[in-house]
Amino acid sequence: MTVRVLALCGGIGGAKLALGLYRVLPPDTLTVAVNTGDDFEHLGLHISPDVDTVLYTLACLNNPETGWGRADETWSFMAALEELGGETWFQLGDGDLALHVERTWRLRDGMGLGTVTEDVRRRLGIAARVLPMSDDPVRTVVETEDGRLPFQHYFVKLRCEPRVTGFVYEGADRARPQPEVMALLADPTLDAVVICPSNPFLSIDPILAMPGLRAAMAACPAPVVAVSPIVGRDSVKGPLGKILRELDLPTSSATVADHYAGLLDGLIVDRRDAGDRAGIAVPTRVAETLMRSLEDREALAKTVLDFAADLRAAKVPPPRLAEAGR
Amino acid sequence: MTVRVLALCGGIGGAKLALGLYRVLPPDTLTVAVNTGDDFEHLGLHISPDVDTVLYTLACLNNPETGWGRADETWSFMAALEELGGETWFQLGDGDLALHVERTWRLRDGMGLGTVTEDVRRRLGIAARVLPMSDDPVRTVVETEDGRLPFQHYFVKLRCEPRVTGFVYEGADRARPQPEVMALLADPTLDAVVICPSNPFLSIDPILAMPGLRAAMAACPAPVVAVSPIVGRDSVKGPLGKILRELDLPTSSATVADHYAGLLDGLIVDRRDAGDRAGIAVPTRVAETLMRSLEDREALAKTVLDFAADLRAAKVPPPRLAEAGR
Repeated sequence: MTVRVLALCGGIGGAKLALGLYRVLPPDTLTVAVNTGDDFEHLGLHISPDVDTVLYTLACLNNPETGWGRADETWSFMAALEELGGETWFQLGDGDLALHVERTWRLRDGMGLGTVTEDVRRRLGIAARVLPMSDDPVRTVVETEDGRLPFQHYFVKLRCEPRVTGFVYEGADRARPQPEVMALLADPTLDAVVICPSNPFLSIDPILAMPGLRAAMAACPAPVVAVSPIVGRDSVKGPLGKILRELDLPTSSATVADHYAGLLDGLIVDRRDAGDRAGIAVPTRVAETLMRSLEDREALAKTVLDFAADLRAAKVPPPRLAEAGR
Repeated sequence: MTVRVLALCGGIGGAKLALGLYRVLPPDTLTVAVNTGDDFEHLGLHISPDVDTVLYTLACLNNPETGWGRADETWSFMAALEELGGETWFQLGDGDLALHVERTWRLRDGMGLGTVTEDVRRRLGIAARVLPMSDDPVRTVVETEDGRLPFQHYFVKLRCEPRVTGFVYEGADRARPQPEVMALLADPTLDAVVICPSNPFLSIDPILAMPGLRAAMAACPAPVVAVSPIVGRDSVKGPLGKILRELDLPTSSATVADHYAGLLDGLIVDRRDAGDRAGIAVPTRVAETLMRSLEDREALAKTVLDFAADLRAAKVPPPRLAEAGR
């Protein structure tokens, strides 16, 4: 039987697990729905940082040191842009630019972001579906003590320094989720929904903020498993730990479980935080979630799929089928 | 007394003489009006090949081997674009892209091509004015036995192979010449107008095709001196020789003189073609016009300026002043 999985993710950390899933699953069975709340227009180019990170990661073109961009990159564009007095706060590698330029003109030509991404993932030889969460623009705005900041200004230009008070996902209320994502969530043959260890506020909430998404996920026949992005009571690399502290929330996996309340069937907790499991209402499984090597990514992916299989077995008959049988 | 010069040119060959003039003239005395008939939109980017060649040449950033683009260029963008299945027939270097991207978004933002170019030449430390001939679009179309071809398709994609029957400068009849060019042509203190050894059909005629330009040049108080692009009864590198043969015109400097009839006060003829001077109606001067070294460029520039000074002396009182004195 073919295992079919839908993964939700943002950039770097989430893309690591997406790669693990891609490698342990049979070809053509993985669909990755990617956050586009970080997308922005820069130098007239449409940049989709999370989609690009997922594409480069699955195509093994990613830069393993930075987490973003391409390996073996050159930087002549940025050097020349600086000479011309252009804006240089957002780094764009020379090879990376090809994706931005090609995507931008195709979008201007009327193509949807999903279609462009589909074409790119085929060109790069990626067997998984990679779906930007929506073709409609959603823009994450970070509310801080210094005012409202567009995501990339907060994240890159100001290096997450301003103190966060909240988040707004502009356009999310009008954004139509990618139809394939909605279809998969309603599909009784889907085996698992995986929420990757991405930042809940910055990478997953923009997806969940779209109309119908949260309800579809709550009603989904397949088990929904999240991997907590908390490792040793902090975030691994990104600003999640800092943000939780600024929002007066405990930097623990229990906070993550609470955040996804009503959606989750299970949560994977890092082995360093095994002691925090008591405060979590859904079933948990402990694992090494720090993904340093390719083997780490594959091992965590297997744990996620095993956990989902167990939850699926326990979940039968699923709520929707039970209701249908009344 | 400050010598003030207006040079008209296209790309590679013309830019060489522009550099020579730039180097032998005092700072801030040279204005270069550049053909934009070769401009086109490619991958959503506004490309101005001749303007860029002049900018790079005057800033000493040009690639001396190709004649176009930047020296010490990298090519990661093209390699990645090919992976993505993008159009690769027009080569865009990584550093070169900065100019295209920066210019494109500024144009979209409402800035004129002249203003963008002015800002770029200042950033690159160029003391000469570099003026795209117009802010309005003019597009050279090559009429061939294979049909009408946009210039870059004819020139780059088809390597000038189709047999030429004529030229159309689309938009030229509605294009407003750069006001500084018109002001200079009417300025009694201008010392010389130099038509660089560019292709008359492809680089100079698009400029002359704009309303008022030809008349302003004919009435210009300063002597108009052209450097013939013919060397040894052929073109140096570009397709001029082939085009002349296809149009059943002699590949001689006399053809160039006839082409500019009514505009020229003098023509500089290459030493290899000294024998063709008999058929030329305007005063001529013989020079080495093949510019291999920087010294060649400077020497030819000096010859042009000396010739113009002599013509100016002979031209006094200029027609316009004579008329004004009546």
